[in-house]
Amino acid sequence: MAEYIESLQNLAEQFGRLEGVGRKSALRMAFSVLDMTEEEAATFAKAVLDAKEKIHLCPICQNLTDRERCYICDDETRDRSVICVVADAKTVIAMEKVREYRGLYHVLHGVLSPLNGITPDKLRIKELLTRVGDDSVKEVIVATNADVEGETTAMYIARLLRPLGIKVTRLAFGIAVGTDIEYTDEVTLFRALQGRQDV
Amino acid sequence: MAEYIESLQNLAEQFGRLEGVGRKSALRMAFSVLDMTEEEAATFAKAVLDAKEKIHLCPICQNLTDRERCYICDDETRDRSVICVVADAKTVIAMEKVREYRGLYHVLHGVLSPLNGITPDKLRIKELLTRVGDDSVKEVIVATNADVEGETTAMYIARLLRPLGIKVTRLAFGIAVGTDIEYTDEVTLFRALQGRQDV
Repeated sequence: MAEYIESLQNLAEQFGRLEGVGRKSALRMAFSVLDMTEEEAATFAKAVLDAKEKIHLCPICQNLTDRERCYICDDETRDRSVICVVADAKTVIAMEKVREYRGLYHVLHGVLSPLNGITPDKLRIKELLTRVGDDSVKEVIVATNADVEGETTAMYIARLLRPLGIKVTRLAFGIAVGTDIEYTDEVTLFRALQGRQDV
Repeated sequence: MAEYIESLQNLAEQFGRLEGVGRKSALRMAFSVLDMTEEEAATFAKAVLDAKEKIHLCPICQNLTDRERCYICDDETRDRSVICVVADAKTVIAMEKVREYRGLYHVLHGVLSPLNGITPDKLRIKELLTRVGDDSVKEVIVATNADVEGETTAMYIARLLRPLGIKVTRLAFGIAVGTDIEYTDEVTLFRALQGRQDV
């Protein structure tokens, strides 16, 4: 039926274009909009436009922000000698949830993947080099995933920054807390073994 | 972090208000919007407003439509002697997918639930009575769920229509095709037994 109600079908298609939304969920969401009042639907539509219009990249760390600079770069209490390099803004959210890290971030907006045409000039690596140019930065923590692209990106950044006398580290990979060693895959176990520490 | 970017947080909250969308999915969808071009975001926002503005209820069957009357009521080839009564527009979509039913529909927009304040006057039952007023309607198939509210609604409609000489039927409940009798719950098995048919 939906295909006969053009505006419903159209709305469902729009929802279906969002990441991780299947055809059925998209239709259910479109129906949810019909259940809204006119005012709620207007608020919803405005939120879409607002987010797109107001959010831009922080000129320093390239993270998303709707202010001039992002709230982390603006925060005077953060440790300016450490920069955590991440692939995207979602990783910043994950890291901030830990409430342990007090340094700054740098968002690359992707990871190196030459086969897919993602070369260093496509990422925000130039901006990272500008930031570490002054002597205040002592350490760069590369927090990319443990897959081929993530590792390649970490290696590339390490090779760029080490000659400048900056310590480059990588997040530890190993057995996830709460999981059973018995059921841990070999690659993870290998990394856990490699990264073993004194007790 | 999201809570520090007001427009991102706001958009995620809007997505979170849609049926079946959790907090994490809502945030992921909000990020999807940021990945859109300005034009795509505008199209998305417009689709929300359009759907809300253009879609209304068909004056005959109370189904959703963006035309004067819905495409089913408008279809001259449909059998006007049978009306399938459903709780919502989504059930019409499910029924139409079968491509077997050629009659008309009537959408109640809910099921009776006196405890939750859903009394007959809250549903589109009056409109159904108006429709069966002329003699063309011979059968009304009540396609509500097999739960307490659905059964109550079906009973209520049957009691209203039978005195008018209209045949009132109910969809068959039983073992779903493709499932194992071994794993079928007792209530379903009971209904299947009750509805057993000659081979």
